[in-house]
This record gives sequence, C-alpha cells and structure tokens, in this order.
Amino acid sequence: MESIGIGLAGFGTVGAGVYKNLAANRALLTQRLGVEFNVRRIAVRDLTRPRTVEAPAELFTTDLDSLLQDPEIQIVVELIGGTDHALRFVRAALEAGKIVITGNKALLAEHGAELFALASERRVPIFYEAAVAGGIPIIKTTREAFIANRFESIHGILNGTSNYILTRMTAAGLDFATALAEAQALGYAEADPALDVNGWDAAHKAIILASLAYGFWIRAEDIHVAGIDSLTRDDIRFADQLGYSIKLLATIKADEQAAVEVRLCPTLIPKTHVLASVNGVFNAVWLRGDVVGDALFYGRGAGQDPTASSVIADLADAAAALASPRRCYGFTSHDLYGRLKPLDEAVAQFYLRLLVDDTPGVLAQIAGILAAANIGISSVIQPESHEPGPLPLVLMIHDASFGRMREAAERIGALACVKAAPALLPVEHFH
Amino acid sequence: MESIGIGLAGFGTVGAGVYKNLAANRALLTQRLGVEFNVRRIAVRDLTRPRTVEAPAELFTTDLDSLLQDPEIQIVVELIGGTDHALRFVRAALEAGKIVITGNKALLAEHGAELFALASERRVPIFYEAAVAGGIPIIKTTREAFIANRFESIHGILNGTSNYILTRMTAAGLDFATALAEAQALGYAEADPALDVNGWDAAHKAIILASLAYGFWIRAEDIHVAGIDSLTRDDIRFADQLGYSIKLLATIKADEQAAVEVRLCPTLIPKTHVLASVNGVFNAVWLRGDVVGDALFYGRGAGQDPTASSVIADLADAAAALASPRRCYGFTSHDLYGRLKPLDEAVAQFYLRLLVDDTPGVLAQIAGILAAANIGISSVIQPESHEPGPLPLVLMIHDASFGRMREAAERIGALACVKAAPALLPVEHFH
Repeated sequence: MESIGIGLAGFGTVGAGVYKNLAANRALLTQRLGVEFNVRRIAVRDLTRPRTVEAPAELFTTDLDSLLQDPEIQIVVELIGGTDHALRFVRAALEAGKIVITGNKALLAEHGAELFALASERRVPIFYEAAVAGGIPIIKTTREAFIANRFESIHGILNGTSNYILTRMTAAGLDFATALAEAQALGYAEADPALDVNGWDAAHKAIILASLAYGFWIRAEDIHVAGIDSLTRDDIRFADQLGYSIKLLATIKADEQAAVEVRLCPTLIPKTHVLASVNGVFNAVWLRGDVVGDALFYGRGAGQDPTASSVIADLADAAAALASPRRCYGFTSHDLYGRLKPLDEAVAQFYLRLLVDDTPGVLAQIAGILAAANIGISSVIQPESHEPGPLPLVLMIHDASFGRMREAAERIGALACVKAAPALLPVEHFH
Repeated sequence: MESIGIGLAGFGTVGAGVYKNLAANRALLTQRLGVEFNVRRIAVRDLTRPRTVEAPAELFTTDLDSLLQDPEIQIVVELIGGTDHALRFVRAALEAGKIVITGNKALLAEHGAELFALASERRVPIFYEAAVAGGIPIIKTTREAFIANRFESIHGILNGTSNYILTRMTAAGLDFATALAEAQALGYAEADPALDVNGWDAAHKAIILASLAYGFWIRAEDIHVAGIDSLTRDDIRFADQLGYSIKLLATIKADEQAAVEVRLCPTLIPKTHVLASVNGVFNAVWLRGDVVGDALFYGRGAGQDPTASSVIADLADAAAALASPRRCYGFTSHDLYGRLKPLDEAVAQFYLRLLVDDTPGVLAQIAGILAAANIGISSVIQPESHEPGPLPLVLMIHDASFGRMREAAERIGALACVKAAPALLPVEHFH
C-alpha cells in the first residue's frame, strides 16, 4: 500500500479534528482511496499547550519549516490562520513543490491571486474546501460538478454565528446584544466576535466563491460589506410584516454583459424562499447555473468535524493529484467574465428605515428627495405612535442603483426631521 | 490544446442536451479544463428521426459498435437506456478500454456488481452522476466530498414525477388519477408512468446510492419497494392531521452493527422537516455522515439540461482520469459494512389505514391483534361518520419490526369487519 506523507501546520480545533478523524475512519478511507495517509509532523506554536486530541509527542514541532524540509511530506495542511506566517508558509510550500491544503479564508481572499499564480507556475495544486462553508462541498461542486455551467447567481448564508444571532432575533424577538451574548454562552460566537458579526468572515468566503465561479480574483476593497451589528429588533419586525426575513447574505450575480456584482450584507429575502428557512448555525448556498438550473446545498458551516470532513476530502483529491499531471490547480483564471460590476451600478430593491420627527410634512420631504432622484416607493410603513418622540418610518423602494440610492439616503439623512442615520438594506427576490 | 474524442450512444433528450451544452459553453469548458472535447460519433436507432438539436449529419450512425472501433474515441457516453443493448455495449466498451459514462439507473442497479468488477479488472472507470438525482451532484459528493465519512443515513426524494403528484395531492386535494393526468399534461409524467409511480425508478437510484455509500452491491429483490399509486386523498389528509407529509422516500440507514436497511416507499415525514418542503418536480437528498453531520442537496432531478450538466461533469472527470493511473473506478467495494439488513428486521413507526364496518367491537378486535403481537398504538383517528357504510380508521404504531407489523396487518386485513386491504406506511423521524 502506497503511503502519502502529510504535514499538519496547526493543531487547533480543525487541525486536531483532521488528525482525529483520519485515525477514526482510517481503514475505510484507505479502502476507498487505495493509499494510506501518514501524518509525519504537526507544527504548533507551543509544545506545552494541553491538547483535546491525542497524538504521539514525537510528531510535534515548533519549526514550521521542518514540514517543508521533510522529503517524505508530499502534502501540507495549513490551519494556522492569519495572513502573516500562513502566507509565508504557503508560498514556501508551493516553491518546495508540496501540495497545499488550506482552510484559511482570509489568506485566499487577500492573497489568492498571487498564490494561485504561483501554484500554476509551479504546477502544484492548492485545495481549499474547508475555507468556504465548512462541511458543505461547495468548492468541489463549483469547480467540478458544475463545470459545464456559467453561473448566473450564487447566494449564500456563509456565517453560522451571524445566522444564529439573526435566527434568535427573529424567533425570540431578542435584540442584537442579547442574541450575541447567548451565542457566546453556547460557544457559537467567539469572545471577540468582530469578524463574524461585521460581515468580513462571510465576505472572505464570498470573494473566494465568486472568484472561483467567474475566473478572476475579486478584491476585497471593491465589494460592499456590512455586518449585522447595526440591525435592530424593529428591522426584523418590519421585514416580517412586509413578508421578508433578514439574512446576512452573500449575493453574487452576473448580468448579461457578464459583469459580476458581489456584496455581503444583511438582506431582506422572501419568507417563502428556502434560504429563509436556513436557521441556527447552519450554512447554505443557493446556486443558479445556466445548464443545471437552481440547486441548494445545506449543512454545517463550521465546527471541528464538519470542517475536518472537507480537509480530508481535499487530502483525497491531493492524493489523486499526486498521480496525475492534469489535475486543476484549484482555480482557473479565464477572461470570459470580464469585470467586476462597480457596486454603484448594481440595481436592487431596498428597505429604508428612518427615525423621524412626528410632525406633518416629513413624508413629503422624504418622498420629494426620492422623486427628484427618480426613485419609486413601493410601500410605506409608519406605525401609529402612542408615545412622544421620533418614530420609525420604513419605505420599500423600487429598483434603483446602489449609487443613486445611497446618495438619496444621504440627502434624506441630512434632513432636520430625520433623527438618526438611515438604515438601508437591499431586498433580494432571486429572479 | 489536447483533444479528447467522445462517442455518444443515444441522442434522445439527454444525449441531445449533452451535445447542445458542450457546444454552448465550449470556450468556458475548455478554459476550465485545459482540454477540448470532440464528439466524433453519435449512435442512434433511426437516422431519419427529426432532431430538436442540430448536429452534423456525418456524425450520426446506426452502428453502435463503430464507437468502440474508433481509436480516437476515448470516452463513450451511454444514454440509450434499457438493460439489453446498453449492457452489451457497456461491457464491450470496458473490454475495449473506453471510459464509460452512463445515466442508466436500471443498468447499474441490476448489473452494477458485474460492470464495476469488469471496470476494476480492466482499470477503466465508469462515471454515472446522471443516473441519480439528475443535476444534483450526489454521486461525486458521496464518493469524493464525503470520503472521510461513514454514512449513518441517506434519505432521498429521487423521483420528480411522483413528487409532483404528491405535491398536488397535498396542496390541491387532488386524487392520484387526477394529479397523474395533470403531470402528464405538463410533460412531467410519461404516457406510461409505471416506473415513476410504482417506485422502481427511484428504487434503482436508491440501490446505486446505497451501494456506493456502503461498498457492496444491493440486490433489487432484497429491498422493499412500493409506489404512490395506491395512496388515497384520505391518506394525505390523515397524515396532515397528524402533522406529517407523505413523500416517496428512499430510506437508507446503517445500524451500529453496520447492517444496512434500504427501502423505497411512501413514507410519513414530519411537516417541519426540510424534506417536507421539497415540492414539485425537485429532488433532494438528506445525508448524515459521522464526520460531516447533516447535509442537504436539492435541485432538479430530471430534464435535458440538468442531466446534461451531470454528464458533462463526468466528462471532465473522465478527462482527468485519462491522465491519471490512480483515479477511482467509480465504485469501491469493501467489506466494512458487512450486510444488508433483511427488511423484516428493520424497525420503524407505522401509519396503518383501514376501512372498517361501523359496528361496535371493531377497534377492540384490531387492538387485540396488535396487543397479541406486542405492538403498541400511539394514536387513533376515527372520523365521525354521517353516512352509512364502512369507515376509515387510522392507527399510528409505535416502533415495530416490518416483519411483525406486516404479519399483524395481514391478520387485521383478514378480519370480517375490515373491508379493504390495509394501507401500511412507515413513519420517518430522521433521528
């Protein structure tokens, strides 16, 4: 039986999960694959840290580079996170001709263009199923199963922490802070939840998915990213009254001129759409291809075991790649979908929530600004008030470009009768 | 650019779809894959038949074997259907060293053991994504993406025609015959709908999926198969009152001793489970792996384009396999899940619907038979009657083995007060 040497860089939650599950299903995996995996080294920062998963002490090292110097290590698995040591390590691994598996979404979203160019030049593949949507095989599906397709749109719920918080805000009427505290107590949110709730964890995943689907690297600074941290209970309630749920949604769409729109923000979606039923820490991706039509993939987007399942699938692909000169390098650059659509040009429907004085003429002023910008209103909710002070006012807006809509919202926000920064969220109908 | 020669056997709906979509997305596919596909021959039964998709006349032949004699054809795509010519052709193709792609579920369900043994012996792969769930990449996912997993259970809605009929019976209160006629009028059911509504189309898919997941070929005669043709409006209505939907469901489960249970029949599932929301002609597979946890895959289970998407994905895998000596042969036989569980040993909850005389003592007689068999009743529905004649009586049954339950149902059916054959359906809770 041929044996393939693996170097594990990182032995945190996911790294330990990979080691544990390689051992637990060893016989089955070997039979299915026809080769045996042999973890030869595990690089960690601190040898003395207690481990929840046991591994022989002689495997551990603090010397990352020793994984690259071992000629019997053919595949390295980068699970150290961050974009500093990880970038240097992945570069060096590719230079050394080691196949790279990584679950590092920030690394790929920020340095994917460089790393895949290097991988292609050195003819060494990079696999990264664990970087997007945990246990859901959306990278393999996009790259292989749907290879016949031009992607018309991809919508995803890609951050389980945010989705848990939104689910609780919706189902139990909690406010953001209370739902976050609950998620932290249950271990669904970290002590510092910033990347989860500010949208950037999911945005990194959206960048990777969109770049793979459309064949060019999308830059983080060119897309619209907003988190759930400024959503209020009122937003959830008003959306519900209008027939919508609010999800932190990745929206990736190509228009007929193949300009690609990418955004990651709280978005109103019809309550009847299947993505509105994706609750708790689950992730889902709704994908439309020109050949396959609509498809949905749903599963656990994080966690030790689901993520390990994806890393081990990458190991199996890496084993096949070792024997094949014609495996993909994990990303194909092409010029068939030419350009990223500037966000300001993208057109959507919008939900605009304002806090306004309870005085006559307020709606007229706001409607006047929208009319001057040629933006149509499709409905208005102004709840009756039984208390003094400013009132919420919600407007649903017909199709408008982000640029025009943002400008109008700024002008509205500057009105004396408007008492807080307007909340502006797109509405997605999946047409 | 390397070119790979393809022979298409069959130019019906799917064959024509493959040809059409290979042409439509040719540039994109070539860029993604790095090789070019070249359809060299198309075998059909009748050269004069009008075609909805155009192809050069010189490609067509009525001589199936000519595809195997052309040394530049490296991959053959079998889409002729049936198990007669198709079996002979696939055998000969493997003998000739041609990679085989097939969408023929009956062929694999009935002759998979023989064909994959031959494929393995000749070291030629067979790909068959289109044979199960149309555009949903459930074969690739089971084989590759979830390679790290032991499968605890797989549940699937695998026949769009039946699912459309059940959806209409549920949503519009139609009876079976009316819903079938509607499906036929819309082109969702064929003039002869037997294989769709009697369960065997879906059963073939379940056999393929279970065999792949558990590493041994399951024989059609060893599993329980029932269709939707004997379901009544009453069944749908009673299930609804009890909180369930009825779906034609593939149930595949391994117990802790790795005995595998496979059945395909109308099954009551909780209305709150996501599979209950899979409506119309869509298919879905709900899969539980010991590493990845729960995952759902949803999409179009039939149709020209979705099925072509899967065939073209298989072509891409076949192209990689041509360059690699270590690709799988599409199926790995192993002895880690030893045996099929005899159906009579499988334990489930049941829905038992009877038609009984409206006389005293009926329930006592029925309950007596169940009690004697040590089978517990969890609830009873007996609607009040305002008309003379026999009445429906529905019993929900606690866990019982199929063997014991079937025997008890037979004894109940033989009672003088029972006026029609009992309807016995399992209930699935996905625990």
